[in-house]
Amino acid sequence: MAESPAVSVPSSSAPSRAHARAQDEREPPVMRWWGWGEDARAGALPPHALAFLRENVGVAARPCPPVALANVRLRAAEIGADVLAALREIVGRDHVRGSHVERVVHAAGKGYPDLVRLRAGEPEDAPDAVVLPADRAQLQLVLELCARSRVAVVPFGGGTSVVGGVAPLRGEHAAVISLDMRRLRDIELDRESLLVTVGAGLRAPALEAYLAGRGLTLGHFPQSYEYVSLGGCAATRSAGQASSGYGAIAKMVVGVRMCAPASELALAPFPASAAGPDLRALVVGSEGALGVISELSLRARVAPAARAYEGAFFESFDAGVAALRALAHAHAAHDVARLSDEEETRMSLALAGVHTLKDRLGRAYLALRGYRGGCLAILGFEGADDEVAGRRKRALALVRRAGGLPVGTSPGEAWRRSRFAAPYLRDELLTHGVIVETLETATQWSNLLRLRAAVARALAETLGAGGTPPLVMCHVSHLYETGASLYFTFIARQREGEEIGQWREAKEAASAAICAHGGTITHHHAIGRDHARWLREEIGGEGVAALRALKAELDPAGVMNPGKLLA
Amino acid sequence: MAESPAVSVPSSSAPSRAHARAQDEREPPVMRWWGWGEDARAGALPPHALAFLRENVGVAARPCPPVALANVRLRAAEIGADVLAALREIVGRDHVRGSHVERVVHAAGKGYPDLVRLRAGEPEDAPDAVVLPADRAQLQLVLELCARSRVAVVPFGGGTSVVGGVAPLRGEHAAVISLDMRRLRDIELDRESLLVTVGAGLRAPALEAYLAGRGLTLGHFPQSYEYVSLGGCAATRSAGQASSGYGAIAKMVVGVRMCAPASELALAPFPASAAGPDLRALVVGSEGALGVISELSLRARVAPAARAYEGAFFESFDAGVAALRALAHAHAAHDVARLSDEEETRMSLALAGVHTLKDRLGRAYLALRGYRGGCLAILGFEGADDEVAGRRKRALALVRRAGGLPVGTSPGEAWRRSRFAAPYLRDELLTHGVIVETLETATQWSNLLRLRAAVARALAETLGAGGTPPLVMCHVSHLYETGASLYFTFIARQREGEEIGQWREAKEAASAAICAHGGTITHHHAIGRDHARWLREEIGGEGVAALRALKAELDPAGVMNPGKLLA
Repeated sequence: MAESPAVSVPSSSAPSRAHARAQDEREPPVMRWWGWGEDARAGALPPHALAFLRENVGVAARPCPPVALANVRLRAAEIGADVLAALREIVGRDHVRGSHVERVVHAAGKGYPDLVRLRAGEPEDAPDAVVLPADRAQLQLVLELCARSRVAVVPFGGGTSVVGGVAPLRGEHAAVISLDMRRLRDIELDRESLLVTVGAGLRAPALEAYLAGRGLTLGHFPQSYEYVSLGGCAATRSAGQASSGYGAIAKMVVGVRMCAPASELALAPFPASAAGPDLRALVVGSEGALGVISELSLRARVAPAARAYEGAFFESFDAGVAALRALAHAHAAHDVARLSDEEETRMSLALAGVHTLKDRLGRAYLALRGYRGGCLAILGFEGADDEVAGRRKRALALVRRAGGLPVGTSPGEAWRRSRFAAPYLRDELLTHGVIVETLETATQWSNLLRLRAAVARALAETLGAGGTPPLVMCHVSHLYETGASLYFTFIARQREGEEIGQWREAKEAASAAICAHGGTITHHHAIGRDHARWLREEIGGEGVAALRALKAELDPAGVMNPGKLLA
Repeated sequence: MAESPAVSVPSSSAPSRAHARAQDEREPPVMRWWGWGEDARAGALPPHALAFLRENVGVAARPCPPVALANVRLRAAEIGADVLAALREIVGRDHVRGSHVERVVHAAGKGYPDLVRLRAGEPEDAPDAVVLPADRAQLQLVLELCARSRVAVVPFGGGTSVVGGVAPLRGEHAAVISLDMRRLRDIELDRESLLVTVGAGLRAPALEAYLAGRGLTLGHFPQSYEYVSLGGCAATRSAGQASSGYGAIAKMVVGVRMCAPASELALAPFPASAAGPDLRALVVGSEGALGVISELSLRARVAPAARAYEGAFFESFDAGVAALRALAHAHAAHDVARLSDEEETRMSLALAGVHTLKDRLGRAYLALRGYRGGCLAILGFEGADDEVAGRRKRALALVRRAGGLPVGTSPGEAWRRSRFAAPYLRDELLTHGVIVETLETATQWSNLLRLRAAVARALAETLGAGGTPPLVMCHVSHLYETGASLYFTFIARQREGEEIGQWREAKEAASAAICAHGGTITHHHAIGRDHARWLREEIGGEGVAALRALKAELDPAGVMNPGKLLA
C-alpha cells in the first residue's frame, strides 16, 4: 500500500481560524444635516480664497447660511401603524425612529442638489421612519416585512452618497423607511489569512483604527473616508484615493453576505474560485437595489512602515498623462497617483493662499517660475522601507525621463493633509452663492485626452450659455494598465432661484459628453439616482434586462431602493 | 469670463485608437480524438517510470491502446433536415459538419472519464452536427435558430475541458450541436492602452505569437495552453500557471461580448467603473450556460525582458506553506509560485529518472541528501532586468528566513520546459491501466493544511477501500494575499471494467471533503458537468436561483449548454 499522505493538522467540521472578535463600541458620528462633516472640523473661507472666487466666477452679495433645523419642511410620515408596530417588534422600540431630526438627517445624501435643497429647508422627501436593525437576523425580518407590506427600503450607511444614493424615494410604494446600518459593526480577524470580516455598518475609520492596533490596514481611503460605511463602499463599488496601489473596494471584498427580501445570498471568502460566474461582483455595486449588504470579508494588508508622497511638475497635462501611463505600464507602482491639469493646479495653489505657496513648494517652486501653467502630480508610495525606496527611485526615474520635474515631498504632504477637506470647502462655497460639483469617469489611455476635452467643453459651453461661465478643472487618478479615471471639478456663480436647474443642465451635458466619447458614466461615485438614466448607455438593454431579472428574483416586490440604479 | 479649458485634442464621435487589426491565418490545431495533444508531441513512458508505477500502484499486465477511430460507436445523428438546412443557410454548407471524425472529435473534452470512454470507443454521446460560425452575426443567428428549434448548443473552443464542459449533453432537447468557435479569431490591438481585442475562438499560442511580435504578452499559461481558446479560458474562469504574477483570466478580461439567444450583451472595455454590478463577472465563468462569449478585450503587458525560475527546498510542506504565505503577504511578487508536497516531490524526481536527477538539481541536490522527504518549490520571476533582480533578491531572502534552501535555476528551468507535459503522460498511464486524475480547490491560508489533509485522506480511504490504494500528491500554487489553491494528483491501478465507477467514487469523496472543509469546489477547472451538483454547496440556494433567473432572461428556451453549471 502507498504511504498515506504526510499531514499534521487534525480535522474538524469548522475552519480552524484563530479569530479575534470585537464590537466597535463607539457610536458612529453623524454629519451635520445640511452639509458635510461636523461643525468642529469646518472653517470659514479665508479672504484670499474668497477674493479668488470673486475674481474668477463671482460670489453672492451676501453669505446665505442654511435655514434652522426647525424650519426644514417635511411631509407628514405616512407609514401604517401596523407596520410600525411590526418593525418595533423586530428591532425594538428605540430603533424605529421618527423624530424631526432623524427624518431630516436621513432625508438626503451629500450631493449638490441634496445640499441646495436641505439648506433651503426643502428636501424632496424624507423617510417615514428610520429603522436600525441590530444584526443580520433582524435585517432579514425587516426586509421580509417591508416586502409583504409594500414599504420601500432605502439602505443608509454613512449617508455620504453624492449621486442621490440614499434619497428616500418611494417608487410606487406609499411609504419608505431609511434602513440605518450603524448597529451592524462587528469585527472578526483571521490574522493568518489577512482577512477581516465586518458588519456592513462599520465605518472605515473604525476599521482602520482596529487594524492599526494589529499592524494592519485596509487601504481604502475615498474622499468620504471619515464617514463612510464599509457596506456603503461595497454597494457603490467605491475606489479610494490609494486605489492605484491597494485596489478599489471590489478587489478587497473576498466574501460577502447580502440580505434580500427573497432570502440571503452568502458567498464564502475563498481567495479565488472558478465555480461559475463571480456572484460577489453582483453584490458589489448593487447599490441596495437587489438587497442590503450585511457583512463583508475584506482583504487587509500589513500596514506600511514607510510612506513617501512626492510632488512632480509637468509642463503640460499631455506630458503628465504620458508619464503616468508609462508608470502604469512599467508597474512602477505608486499607491497614490494623481495629476492635476493646468486649471486645477492654478486653483489649488491659489486656494492654498499666496502666503503659503512658498511653504508648500519650497525652493523647487522658485525654480519653476518658467513653468507657468504647469501641472502638478502627486505620487505616493507606501510599504516596507526598502520597498518604498526602490519603487520611489524607479518611479522618479521614469518621471524624469518623461520630462517631469520632481519637487520633493512638500506638495505631497500638503495634499495628504487636506485629502478629505474638499467637501467642507463645498459648504463654504454654497454659503457664498457658488455652485461646485464634481463628476468622474474612466477610459482607455488612448482615449483619455479626447474624453477630457469633450467633457470640459460640454461644461464650459452649457454653463457659459446660462450666463455663469465656470472654471473647469480636471485630474487623472486611479491608474490602471489599460487606462485611468478623470475627475472633474467645476465652479461657477449660482443662478439664483434656479440652482437645481443650472446643476441639472451642467450634469446632463457632462453625462452626455462622457457617454458619447467613450467614458464610463461613473468610475467611483456609483449610479444612485443621478446616473440612473445613463446606465443603459453603459451596459446596454440586455445588461439592464439581466439586472432586472436578478432584481425580480431577489426582490420580487420591488421594495429595495426604488428610483435608483434600475429606475 | 473664465478661461476655457486648455485642451489640445480634437473630438470626433469614435475613439481615436490607432488600432492594428489582424486575422490569425493559421488553422488552429486539432487534438487526437482519444487523448491529449498531437501524436508528434507524445512519447512512450520510459522504463524507469514504468518501474516506479509497477512498484507503487501496479500496472496492467499488457498495454491497452485505444480502439481504432472507425470502431468508435456513435448513435445516429437526430437533427431535423430543416434545422440543418437553416444552419447551412447561416454559416455556409462547409461549416455544418456531420462526419464520423468531426462528431468523435467533438464528442467529449479531455477529462478522465471522457478519455476512458473514448479509448474504449464508447463515448456517452456525440453532437448531431458541428457548426462553425464565421463571425458574431452568424453566431447570433445560430443561437436564435437553435432556441426556436429547441436544439441544444454546446460551445466548443479548444476542447480541453477536464470537467465535462464540452460534453454534448442534450438536456430535454432532441438534438444537440457542437458550436465550434475556431473561425472567430480576429485580433485588434490598442497599443497605447495595452488592450487587445480578440475573437473568442482564438487560441492562446496564436495570441502570444501575435503579441510577442509587438513586444507584449498576455501572460496566461494554463496547463492546457497549447490548445486552449481565449473564449474558453474566460468562460471557465481559468487561472494560468503564472497567475500569482499576471492574475487569472478574470483580471485580464476588461471588455467582453456574449451572444445569447435573447440578444447580445456587450460590455465596453472601461479600465474600471462603478456603474452598478460588474456584469463582466457574470460573463466570465458563465461556461456557455448563459450564452457564448464571442469577443474579448484583454489587458496585455510588456513582454518580460528577464526571466528567472528558481528551485528551493523546504524540510516540510508546512514550512514551505509558511514561506509562500510570507511571500504573498510581503508582496514579494513572483509570477509563478508552486510548492510540491513530499509525495509529489518524490514522484516528480522519480519520473524524471534517476539518471537525470543530478542534472536537474546539480550539486545542490548532493548537499540536500540529509533532506530526504523534503518539498520542492518553484519560484518564477519575470519582468524588466532590474525589476527581476530586485524581486528575486527580496523573495529569496524571505525564503531563507523561512528555512528554505534555494537550489538554483535547474529545477525551475526543468519545470518550465515540462509545464505542459502532464496531459501527455496521462495518456501513457491510461495505456498501462493506471488511473490518474487531478482536482483542485482554494481556501484561506489559515485553513490550507487542514483542507489538504482532509482531501488527501478522503482519496486514500476511498480508493484504498476499493482495493486500489493510491499515491496522492499535492501542490500549492496560485498565491493570493488571503489564501492559495491546492492542486491534487492521484494515481492508482485502474479497477478493470469499473473504471468510471472507481473514478466517480474518488471524485465524490474528494468533492465532499472539499466542501465540508472550507474549500471552493474548483479553483480553475470550472464546474462543467462533473461539479454541477456541488455548485449549490458553494453559492447556496439563492445563488443558484440568481443564476437561474439570469439564464431565464438570456436563454429562455434553455438550449445553452444544458446539463452543465446549473444542471
